[in-house]
Amino acid sequence: MNRRELLYSGLAAGGLAASGGAAWSEAGPDADGLSPVQSAVTYMPVPAQKQVVANAEALGSKPYAGFFNPELTVSTRTAREIQAGPLAAEETTAPSIEGLASLLTMDHATLRNGYGLLENGTSYVQSRHLMPGVTTEMFRWWFTWHPVESERYMLWFPHAHIENSVEDPDRLADTSLSYEERLYDNPNHVKELIGPEMSDFIIHFKDPAELGFDPAAMRAAGFTASASGLISPTAAYGVITSLMVHIARDTAQGMELISRYWIGAHPELKRFKGAAMAGIALKLAGFDEEAAENAAHELAVHDMIEFEHLARLLPGLYARFADG
Amino acid sequence: MNRRELLYSGLAAGGLAASGGAAWSEAGPDADGLSPVQSAVTYMPVPAQKQVVANAEALGSKPYAGFFNPELTVSTRTAREIQAGPLAAEETTAPSIEGLASLLTMDHATLRNGYGLLENGTSYVQSRHLMPGVTTEMFRWWFTWHPVESERYMLWFPHAHIENSVEDPDRLADTSLSYEERLYDNPNHVKELIGPEMSDFIIHFKDPAELGFDPAAMRAAGFTASASGLISPTAAYGVITSLMVHIARDTAQGMELISRYWIGAHPELKRFKGAAMAGIALKLAGFDEEAAENAAHELAVHDMIEFEHLARLLPGLYARFADG
Ligand SMILES: [Zn+2]
Ligand SMILES: [Zn+2]
Repeated sequence: MNRRELLYSGLAAGGLAASGGAAWSEAGPDADGLSPVQSAVTYMPVPAQKQVVANAEALGSKPYAGFFNPELTVSTRTAREIQAGPLAAEETTAPSIEGLASLLTMDHATLRNGYGLLENGTSYVQSRHLMPGVTTEMFRWWFTWHPVESERYMLWFPHAHIENSVEDPDRLADTSLSYEERLYDNPNHVKELIGPEMSDFIIHFKDPAELGFDPAAMRAAGFTASASGLISPTAAYGVITSLMVHIARDTAQGMELISRYWIGAHPELKRFKGAAMAGIALKLAGFDEEAAENAAHELAVHDMIEFEHLARLLPGLYARFADG
Repeated sequence: MNRRELLYSGLAAGGLAASGGAAWSEAGPDADGLSPVQSAVTYMPVPAQKQVVANAEALGSKPYAGFFNPELTVSTRTAREIQAGPLAAEETTAPSIEGLASLLTMDHATLRNGYGLLENGTSYVQSRHLMPGVTTEMFRWWFTWHPVESERYMLWFPHAHIENSVEDPDRLADTSLSYEERLYDNPNHVKELIGPEMSDFIIHFKDPAELGFDPAAMRAAGFTASASGLISPTAAYGVITSLMVHIARDTAQGMELISRYWIGAHPELKRFKGAAMAGIALKLAGFDEEAAENAAHELAVHDMIEFEHLARLLPGLYARFADG
């Protein structure tokens, strides 16, 4: 158990007391286990505080406006996991074929949600979200429903989501096609605040087999939905700067979502066409190691907020709008 | 009631529903008033995540190490007030003689904790903290006890506080003198993270009469303790860039602390020797309007965390260490 685990495990009292201090419980009520299980989000960057006002205005007349809820909450445990400092190398997953394969079999419940730096200053984020009441069916529906209007995307993260569209909206809306036929290789333009920074990028959602997953192994592990892909800056469409993995399966406790983000010039990303330029493109944008670590942290916080919020919204939204 | 108030008052449902939306309660459990009263701090900047590990190490062998608790919580209400965007001009207080006088008589319970920009791009923060179980006697004791060792200062904000000392420690420690004689005009060197930024400055604690308060009016309003003063960057000792007000009184619900921070070239600060250079000094440091607004926001978050945390620590610390 390292120092960071001591700090945040509630065992710090013992550790500190053993080295001469008094009992932790002197420190106040939350040291006695009275910390809330669920916490309101206690920090929102200034640009996001302003964006939510504009977004509330935009939502005004939509039939789903009642689902626009800026009173965000997250699980205390996840929030504290992300605050426990960058992940150590052995806690992380590489974006290699083997790394992707390991996602299908590892015990995600024992890993903390977090962020860190990998090879070549690559920004890294990992998360697991267990979503009671949510199914992979709802998850697939969400990815074909929300890019139809930017306002739907705003529901997902009211302070941070700004624009969302796909290159071929007719294909996205064609219910005679499968989820995969509608979403994959239908470039998705996204504009959102990640922390205080505006991000403008294209997600190329892909068949997970194209990213390096083994379809038979995915099926065997129960992963029946994927919203994974390669990401380009909108300003440099042909350059792949990031691999994003969202794979989901139904469990007795609800939908389990496993996510990974790798942003940068990781050697294992070079197998994707366009990724060789990532290092130069990010360096030109001033993305040094400190910036990469901060960006990974902000993305971890963003992922926590948006997926915990989506988990709360999705059953109600699906019940109300999925037939349309 | 403006749009921001609508957003965060729980009345947004009505507002949005009236413009065609469904009821807010569709949006999930926290819309039904299930938000926690107290929330874990859900965001900590990367440098502060690293600092807390070093601070925990430093505290190891101190007799008060049991009071070092990094599991910070804040009131959900205050956290959401600060997220509701910059304060409007009419919600703020000027650093004038009249402004200071108004602090003694205004109804602080009706004001939100928050931040904003005033004249000449001045960063502004206002807060009120009601501290059950805390007294002004404890508050005065804290300001003479903690600057003796940096590790005591770390208790106050385990992730962000780094160094604290006064120019004349013997005078600070001399219990034959009054609180005011020990602290005032005994320059206090402080190093701390405010948001992700390292701040290194000198607080010149002053008799509030020197800052423009009327002592008789303070007494009449029950304000019996002050830790207010003028602030210089350590690198520019003679330049006053900020006025900070912390005035406190005992109430039936506990100690009430009223705070204000003005950082910048506000015309009303020019009455203080050294303040005429503030505008130039801050401009040289790259402190434009966007930076000033962000700094005010970070300081508001910092103030919330440290004073809510101090309120939890102080009764126990005082009971254990005040006789020494
Ligand atoms: Zn997002
Ligand atoms: Zn502080």
